[in-house]
Amino acid sequence: MIVGGAQIGGIQKAEPRATVVARMMALMEQAHRQGVQFLVYPEMTLTTFFPRFYVEDRAEFDHWFETEMPNAATQPLFDLARRLGMGFTFGYCELTPEGQHFNTSIIVSPGGEILSTYRKTHLPGHADHDPARTHQHLEKRYFLAGDTGFNVVRNQGVIMGMAICNDRRWPETWRSLGLQGVELVTIGYNTPSQNNLSAEEGIERRVYHHELSVCAGAYQNSTYAVAVAKCGLEDGNHMFAGSIIVDPDGFVIARATGEGDELILAECDFDKCAFGKSTVFNFAAHRRIEHYGRITNQTGVRIEV
Amino acid sequence: MIVGGAQIGGIQKAEPRATVVARMMALMEQAHRQGVQFLVYPEMTLTTFFPRFYVEDRAEFDHWFETEMPNAATQPLFDLARRLGMGFTFGYCELTPEGQHFNTSIIVSPGGEILSTYRKTHLPGHADHDPARTHQHLEKRYFLAGDTGFNVVRNQGVIMGMAICNDRRWPETWRSLGLQGVELVTIGYNTPSQNNLSAEEGIERRVYHHELSVCAGAYQNSTYAVAVAKCGLEDGNHMFAGSIIVDPDGFVIARATGEGDELILAECDFDKCAFGKSTVFNFAAHRRIEHYGRITNQTGVRIEV
Repeated sequence: MIVGGAQIGGIQKAEPRATVVARMMALMEQAHRQGVQFLVYPEMTLTTFFPRFYVEDRAEFDHWFETEMPNAATQPLFDLARRLGMGFTFGYCELTPEGQHFNTSIIVSPGGEILSTYRKTHLPGHADHDPARTHQHLEKRYFLAGDTGFNVVRNQGVIMGMAICNDRRWPETWRSLGLQGVELVTIGYNTPSQNNLSAEEGIERRVYHHELSVCAGAYQNSTYAVAVAKCGLEDGNHMFAGSIIVDPDGFVIARATGEGDELILAECDFDKCAFGKSTVFNFAAHRRIEHYGRITNQTGVRIEV
Repeated sequence: MIVGGAQIGGIQKAEPRATVVARMMALMEQAHRQGVQFLVYPEMTLTTFFPRFYVEDRAEFDHWFETEMPNAATQPLFDLARRLGMGFTFGYCELTPEGQHFNTSIIVSPGGEILSTYRKTHLPGHADHDPARTHQHLEKRYFLAGDTGFNVVRNQGVIMGMAICNDRRWPETWRSLGLQGVELVTIGYNTPSQNNLSAEEGIERRVYHHELSVCAGAYQNSTYAVAVAKCGLEDGNHMFAGSIIVDPDGFVIARATGEGDELILAECDFDKCAFGKSTVFNFAAHRRIEHYGRITNQTGVRIEV
């Protein structure tokens, strides 16, 4: 299967959903021409990364959220995908009928069916305005921590699982999917190029941490991974690009070269997942869960020495 | 604190413990001259990596094991360390009074006290002779899986934890130590340069996997790590070198250049662990243990889709 990543350049505050969906469709058309059968879009693909802005009354930001999917703005994308026989995944902000806000992604079959919904588990940042930061990162203000956990689905013959942005830094994410036999992990992200708490941590170090996390997660679970950025300048803030496709050996096999809308793709032979899963990472043979208790019994650090 | 890694070149079958200990002492003297205060030796430092050999009767290999520590062969090393005020850690094969065999490492204080004993959790390889392999890797034959779990100890003011060889590939190892506030993870290893089940997986790919695992583990737990090889040619088998010291940002800050006895060292500022532990990897703020259940409930892969 040829898998694609559709990196999306910055989306400004004023940009309507219809414009973004048109950009997504252009990338999907291009992907189809190049043989891509499954296409990965970023986290929060439809809007600017609004958690960089603070509002006292959270409800003022409900307009960044989708109350149904597909909806009028995204229906053309779903229609195009069905016409092309393209499976895809993308992220958006979800407002449920119960009034809950999540940072969400979905996997859609080539037939247009939503097969799986994932709500971001590891929300980074903070919940209140923090004057110590060079810029705000208020995901904990605008979203609830996801309630879905990490699940896989079989789509187009491949066992797929989703993660979103900061989830990729947490080996718990990868292992939860790995224990379900995942063969393709999809990750969308919006990652500022500057650590908002450290002047010295700039883009090079942050891209390294991104790649390190994705490559290690792929290797240690013997799975392909596609990590796709929304990136470049957005409302005057820079987010790094660095979209990559990684093989089950942890090697980058495709990488974006720019910071705008850009297609990356790679032929993925999912049979290659089997070697690692049956040898060095044969979990049944080698894992020792009797010694892993702290990982699920204990949330934070406990120093007892 | 200046931390050192004492890489050890191959030890041949016929080489007595005394010769090896003399090589260890020479590296310790050198380390002391260069200001090292804590020194890390490899896994199974005292002997050849005998799990590459098959014997029908396991008891024939008991001579590779130590029944007490320190013992006559290693007492000079302990004496030298106490004289120099050097803390250290090394690995050896342990045979307990109850007749149990473990792949073990210890942390020894500058005063000569054994502060912590760790028995390797993740034994790679297999238990019976396997003709499909280019060479044998019989750790599961000669050792029991460790019964200690992952623990930390405070030595010379630093929270230290041990892992051995294959443990470094398992994020469960790192997280178990990270949840105890670890600031320095020590890892000794003996890793063949060739995957014995894959002709195409040679030294470059294997060194990459080694570094990827150590760098990701250090970054994702905001800890220093020292990973030290026994390496080079041993009984006609090649093991890769690649000893490294890694900082809490996941960057290699010292690296061995050869495949023999060699000292590497780096100044480690353990205050640097605090930044990651209090921001992106603030476990108390960001971990969601309610979604990690599979990690401890389930050993092997379960495919349900």
